[in-house]
Amino acid sequence: MWGGRFAEGPDAIMEAINASIGFDRRLAPQDIAGSRAHAAMLAATGILSYSDAEMIREGLLTVLSEIETGSFAFSTALEDIHMNVEARLTEIIGDPAKRLHTGRSRNDQVATDFRLWVREQCDMAEDALLALMRACLDQAEAGADWVMPGFTHLQTAQPVTWGHHMMAYVEMFGRDLSRLRDARTRMNECPLGAAALAGTSFPIDRQMTAEALGFAAPCANSLDAVSDRDFALEYLAVASISAMHLSRLAEELVIWSSAQFRFVRLSDRWSTGSSIMPQKRNPDAAELLRAKLGRIFGANVALMTVMKGLPLAYSKDMQEDKEQVFDAADNWLLALRAMGGMVADMTANRDALRAAAASGFSTATDLADWLVRALGLPFREAHHVTGALVAMAEAKACDLADLTLADMQDVHDAITEDVFGVLTVDASVASRVSYGGTAPKEVRRQAARWREVLG
Amino acid sequence: MWGGRFAEGPDAIMEAINASIGFDRRLAPQDIAGSRAHAAMLAATGILSYSDAEMIREGLLTVLSEIETGSFAFSTALEDIHMNVEARLTEIIGDPAKRLHTGRSRNDQVATDFRLWVREQCDMAEDALLALMRACLDQAEAGADWVMPGFTHLQTAQPVTWGHHMMAYVEMFGRDLSRLRDARTRMNECPLGAAALAGTSFPIDRQMTAEALGFAAPCANSLDAVSDRDFALEYLAVASISAMHLSRLAEELVIWSSAQFRFVRLSDRWSTGSSIMPQKRNPDAAELLRAKLGRIFGANVALMTVMKGLPLAYSKDMQEDKEQVFDAADNWLLALRAMGGMVADMTANRDALRAAAASGFSTATDLADWLVRALGLPFREAHHVTGALVAMAEAKACDLADLTLADMQDVHDAITEDVFGVLTVDASVASRVSYGGTAPKEVRRQAARWREVLG
Amino acid sequence: MWGGRFAEGPDAIMEAINASIGFDRRLAPQDIAGSRAHAAMLAATGILSYSDAEMIREGLLTVLSEIETGSFAFSTALEDIHMNVEARLTEIIGDPAKRLHTGRSRNDQVATDFRLWVREQCDMAEDALLALMRACLDQAEAGADWVMPGFTHLQTAQPVTWGHHMMAYVEMFGRDLSRLRDARTRMNECPLGAAALAGTSFPIDRQMTAEALGFAAPCANSLDAVSDRDFALEYLAVASISAMHLSRLAEELVIWSSAQFRFVRLSDRWSTGSSIMPQKRNPDAAELLRAKLGRIFGANVALMTVMKGLPLAYSKDMQEDKEQVFDAADNWLLALRAMGGMVADMTANRDALRAAAASGFSTATDLADWLVRALGLPFREAHHVTGALVAMAEAKACDLADLTLADMQDVHDAITEDVFGVLTVDASVASRVSYGGTAPKEVRRQAARWREVLG
Amino acid sequence: MWGGRFAEGPDAIMEAINASIGFDRRLAPQDIAGSRAHAAMLAATGILSYSDAEMIREGLLTVLSEIETGSFAFSTALEDIHMNVEARLTEIIGDPAKRLHTGRSRNDQVATDFRLWVREQCDMAEDALLALMRACLDQAEAGADWVMPGFTHLQTAQPVTWGHHMMAYVEMFGRDLSRLRDARTRMNECPLGAAALAGTSFPIDRQMTAEALGFAAPCANSLDAVSDRDFALEYLAVASISAMHLSRLAEELVIWSSAQFRFVRLSDRWSTGSSIMPQKRNPDAAELLRAKLGRIFGANVALMTVMKGLPLAYSKDMQEDKEQVFDAADNWLLALRAMGGMVADMTANRDALRAAAASGFSTATDLADWLVRALGLPFREAHHVTGALVAMAEAKACDLADLTLADMQDVHDAITEDVFGVLTVDASVASRVSYGGTAPKEVRRQAARWREVLG
Repeated sequence: MWGGRFAEGPDAIMEAINASIGFDRRLAPQDIAGSRAHAAMLAATGILSYSDAEMIREGLLTVLSEIETGSFAFSTALEDIHMNVEARLTEIIGDPAKRLHTGRSRNDQVATDFRLWVREQCDMAEDALLALMRACLDQAEAGADWVMPGFTHLQTAQPVTWGHHMMAYVEMFGRDLSRLRDARTRMNECPLGAAALAGTSFPIDRQMTAEALGFAAPCANSLDAVSDRDFALEYLAVASISAMHLSRLAEELVIWSSAQFRFVRLSDRWSTGSSIMPQKRNPDAAELLRAKLGRIFGANVALMTVMKGLPLAYSKDMQEDKEQVFDAADNWLLALRAMGGMVADMTANRDALRAAAASGFSTATDLADWLVRALGLPFREAHHVTGALVAMAEAKACDLADLTLADMQDVHDAITEDVFGVLTVDASVASRVSYGGTAPKEVRRQAARWREVLG
Repeated sequence: MWGGRFAEGPDAIMEAINASIGFDRRLAPQDIAGSRAHAAMLAATGILSYSDAEMIREGLLTVLSEIETGSFAFSTALEDIHMNVEARLTEIIGDPAKRLHTGRSRNDQVATDFRLWVREQCDMAEDALLALMRACLDQAEAGADWVMPGFTHLQTAQPVTWGHHMMAYVEMFGRDLSRLRDARTRMNECPLGAAALAGTSFPIDRQMTAEALGFAAPCANSLDAVSDRDFALEYLAVASISAMHLSRLAEELVIWSSAQFRFVRLSDRWSTGSSIMPQKRNPDAAELLRAKLGRIFGANVALMTVMKGLPLAYSKDMQEDKEQVFDAADNWLLALRAMGGMVADMTANRDALRAAAASGFSTATDLADWLVRALGLPFREAHHVTGALVAMAEAKACDLADLTLADMQDVHDAITEDVFGVLTVDASVASRVSYGGTAPKEVRRQAARWREVLG
Repeated sequence: MWGGRFAEGPDAIMEAINASIGFDRRLAPQDIAGSRAHAAMLAATGILSYSDAEMIREGLLTVLSEIETGSFAFSTALEDIHMNVEARLTEIIGDPAKRLHTGRSRNDQVATDFRLWVREQCDMAEDALLALMRACLDQAEAGADWVMPGFTHLQTAQPVTWGHHMMAYVEMFGRDLSRLRDARTRMNECPLGAAALAGTSFPIDRQMTAEALGFAAPCANSLDAVSDRDFALEYLAVASISAMHLSRLAEELVIWSSAQFRFVRLSDRWSTGSSIMPQKRNPDAAELLRAKLGRIFGANVALMTVMKGLPLAYSKDMQEDKEQVFDAADNWLLALRAMGGMVADMTANRDALRAAAASGFSTATDLADWLVRALGLPFREAHHVTGALVAMAEAKACDLADLTLADMQDVHDAITEDVFGVLTVDASVASRVSYGGTAPKEVRRQAARWREVLG
Repeated sequence: MWGGRFAEGPDAIMEAINASIGFDRRLAPQDIAGSRAHAAMLAATGILSYSDAEMIREGLLTVLSEIETGSFAFSTALEDIHMNVEARLTEIIGDPAKRLHTGRSRNDQVATDFRLWVREQCDMAEDALLALMRACLDQAEAGADWVMPGFTHLQTAQPVTWGHHMMAYVEMFGRDLSRLRDARTRMNECPLGAAALAGTSFPIDRQMTAEALGFAAPCANSLDAVSDRDFALEYLAVASISAMHLSRLAEELVIWSSAQFRFVRLSDRWSTGSSIMPQKRNPDAAELLRAKLGRIFGANVALMTVMKGLPLAYSKDMQEDKEQVFDAADNWLLALRAMGGMVADMTANRDALRAAAASGFSTATDLADWLVRALGLPFREAHHVTGALVAMAEAKACDLADLTLADMQDVHDAITEDVFGVLTVDASVASRVSYGGTAPKEVRRQAARWREVLG
């Protein structure tokens, strides 16, 4: 393309490191959409004749169809998707094709293509997030009153409900969705027409191309438009935080699937066996999901490192942006869909959940709270009394509810029969009616709120 | 605190790794604000007597004042800021203090304290970002028509204006601000009253405490409220992207301050000398700013790694959240302020900028565009002709404008005298009037738009 | 220090961002050791008089003692530890102090100080690693034949022994140690005398200072000596990989401490309680250790990002190196020691381990192997037969050993009574005598090999 | 493969997330080498007949040849390279193929394949590093006495030589090589025969397979052998540090290629042009190299995150290891080769280097050192006098050497004519004869030392 000025062609390794067509071919639909919008605008502003523009727009559809059907021959010598498309267009329609690149540059072209691609990924991730949230919500509604242990430090702390636990993830994924929508809104400005970096002297209409491509507005500074990739970094940050949430649920599924916990059974469709241990039923998908955070956040680190300290405007370093985002986006989407499927299919083991909740003095807090509420003990004293009762029960190898009233009165003589009303796991969860608490009726209220949102 | 149940005290190394008071003391104001709001609510809902609540609220102010004046004796044995404050409150007011911890837990306390702290950092960063944007805008308005080279690959590409370049950063920092505000809005929900994880059976009013602390609402799921730190990760992601922008401007300042570029002169207030080379005038602040991305993004990586795969609800791993965010926040704020000061103080070297812009055939694109516009050449042909003319000028060791018309007509005979009208840098920048382009009048229009926003 | 050339002093924020004395004071012992070696060399080479050198060397000891006793007044205006020490030395001994900075610069001083500090950390980490390895080895020797489940995917796969599991960590920490030693050897070259970057015209003897400070040799290129921090990055990489190993053992301790697993009981000295749930016994230290990877690797990311793309020689960006390494080193050392203490103190629950190993058809592989060995079935067929037998046992809700011979012969008629000899967990582990296998005698052999190494 | 035990097949998304054949096919040569060694050992130990083993070994060669010629049909349903190869082998040779998987498992197979692959990458990277070091050394020898500015803070500090600067990179890449060799030595242990995790009851000979595959020994703990990926993390850490060094040289090449610096001219073979600005000559390869650190270190972050907190033994998370290492290895190798080619081809602009070195009072340190040496001034006083002389020269807009002796004596009256002998850049560099200093003779001495090593 610029060969005329150079005495020698590129080294083979130079060609290998420089060409992007190996991966940016994925932007073909976006590139062609951008060029079609550009051609229409060039005609509308009189820069191009309507007939040339029409030939270009039609020719581009032919190119797209060739790419989609696999008959397009990509060329590394042509470096990138932009030159590949334009060269083929020239073969098809001849001279008018050479007028297409007026008032633009590859710098704004690639920035536009890439934004369009990321924006589309936002829409796909939004759908997958919504499906996953619905799967969690379904689980929550079904098990709004199934008692399970609430853990801290993976130690039984207090009884909660399955529905409450599932709704916690609805909240998390809901924030992921909110972050994603904010990112999409912010990135929705069009670089096209920024040209190489300075804008152009052709009387182009950037509002028109922006609108044609579904952008809210053109980017307001042409240097910034071709130089920054913060929209991609924000997308990666959103995906990474969401992948972190996925890794947590995945970890729970792995632990819950163990023979020791048996809290859930993943469906056959989401489990694998072993080649040497025929009895195995492995939560492979959950493990892979747990790992995806590494990959997605690794891409975030990679692009952040690439962008560090780059002077304006375009530097070739930025060509390293796409593969990272492609890989992260593919894996995030896959992970969201896999988690949606796994959650939709999985079966909670009500009995195991309940049995686990009932052990380990899980209602000790209820006892302490009762001491405050019924006997007027200051919380810190109630806590002390409860500790003594737990120690007594432990020594007797029984549960708190199995202590006699006399036992209890040995520790604090004002304790009455009423105390036994708070020592069951059902009483415990039913009592936690504070806003956002684990009481089934509060869980159902929150679930209903989300059901309205999610449909 | 829980010693009664344990036969042996903690190992010295256990104590060292476990205690957080060494760093979470920084949350004292937030902790006390949270406790005061909690006490007021406990009284309003009848859980506490008004007189107890009043003693608690007054006592907490005394504690705060002791901390602020440095007379407070922090205790590692008391582990964290919450217990330190409560223990001191008990010393001061006695029994009522023991009633304060009703209907809450350290898990929701720390989540509330930390959100309050991060939210306040958002407000401080917003102010610093605004000041930095104003400094860039001032530079842009002053130099809206100062011509400088627009670089790609650090090679002169096309002339742009100083104002245009400065406005590119206004756009970037503007998006940082927008991201920050979104993050602040999203984090502005109150965990207080989530208790350890399950909510509480006390008839607390979470809306009341949320409102008292300036939150938009209480968190809707108590498990989620104490388990997640996505708000901190989002804050770190926002800070990291902004630090990336800072690193780019910092890199430019370092390069521009070199003897080879001499594009800017940093003020004495933002330069340092050398102990062994007395002639040095070093852009240390710019270099440190460039480095801050590492530190801030390092914190992001650290917290993301910490959160990976943690089962619900609270795990002690999460205690590692604060130091990372403290350090990142301090350094981001410092970096924003330092950049604001440096930009406000720096002097652009108009002559050096203009001289650099005029060299290197920087108006080659203007020539190519003229060939399209005036002679009707397809862009790709115009590009070829321009290449030949640049080669000719290079061979003659002159600039494009120094070629004769005859020279030019040797390459393409339709070229006319008019061509010389586009070969000066002033003509070049003046012609780029497309939306967001570098033409001074367009730069001034964009600057005026931001001036209205920024005041 | 360089004020004479500047019309205006630094901005307050500039001072805050620029000064390093807040953290590099930690290098005081190294700085003083370096200066003492430098002074001795200056005298030996005739650059300084012996009496001046002696005054300097004595004076530096006084400074060190002031710093160690806390009576030293650090000054931010003097920026860093080097200037603080030199200024105080000048106060104490007068003019000779001004001759100390001959033939060196702050650039090589800080590089030397920092290498000495990191080298010392290597030695401390080595001791802690050895102690941890010994603790694991003690556990392995004690429980060389205690049967426990070997997991893949956190599903019971095959029985292994406690000793075997513990020895796996001895191997991992052993590689960490080997990496650490390699890093120490590689970093052990002395930058002192590289001066600012170019070397010096004074007839210094770099071998002499290198030797005095325990280095194997002086750095062979003065530009490289002051410009690189790869030794710190390698140290951080070594620490990060080791922290990854710690995080894995920590995760196991957390899971094993759960009520569902009950595989180990951490000692009181390494557990904590809860302020609201008196029955809790939390593996806080294990959780904190699990989290430390984030912090340590975050430092690695931070410094790598800082170093990216820095031109030679010294840039101020590199001042960001120390805090990252200090924090990572402190935390790695703490983590190694905490893990050493926890492992030394913990008690394996032999019964729970054995019971878990016996369930879940954990000897299915032994059955398959028997089919190959005794009946000559190809492995893939043996695998198929075993799968059918497991399915049968599952359907009958019994274990493999509980099937009758007749049952088994229904699936494959050549099966004989002998098969029952391989279906117990003891037989299973005893049979795995391949090199590195889980058979107690092989575990003891490997343990003995390490015992010889570790003492 | 395990379908018999499951009522339902995997979900399509499950299949997509679970299969690794899309990328692990790259391990085919290693997988086949491993299986051939395994078969030979099975025969030697009597587990397999020699004729079966021979059929297997021959059949595997056929499979390899099919893969190499592209005629092999990979199957996603068969999940991974191991099953694909074995299935095809079974088609080719029938029953004996089913005996191959005796005494091993996919867990040790993949660990072995992956180590072999990474080990081979070490060897390739070693060659590329050596070639790059030779290219730097060639430059250093050619320009051992070419004077150029030595920068700190990108400000001219002192004159150095081109050779000295190039030798700094020889040292850096030399340490990269040393790290690489240490990593290769450490990883060179063979997991084969660890079986799934526990070892095996078959009388296998692990030393024999280890030796056949070029390993120094078998891994000493079967759990560890299949559970850890620290060898891959160490490889990534080594590659990352080296990529950091590459990013620094790349940054220098970008800056040096600017019109403002003109220190080097990259060859046509390593430059690119522009589609819209025909005069451009862009250092694209250098920019891409600068960016590669992001990608390679991103992979390091990704795998570290994946490995965090995984319990023993194999978890499916670890399947995410290969793509990260493949991508990092490909890019590191490409980067090393590209840098080697660029450095070999580039031309230093001696005149520009010298002119830049001579400006900016670069011999101020020489002046200060002369004041110490010739007049006996304490260094700190000499520094002060030099500062005053620089200020004087700056005020007169001349260089230090252009001041008159009278001018100088106004500042310090003991200055003599001799001072002018140290004020030229040639005198300056020639005087820095300290070990590792920039004096041409010292540079040549260091270069000769490396030439002996590198040949």
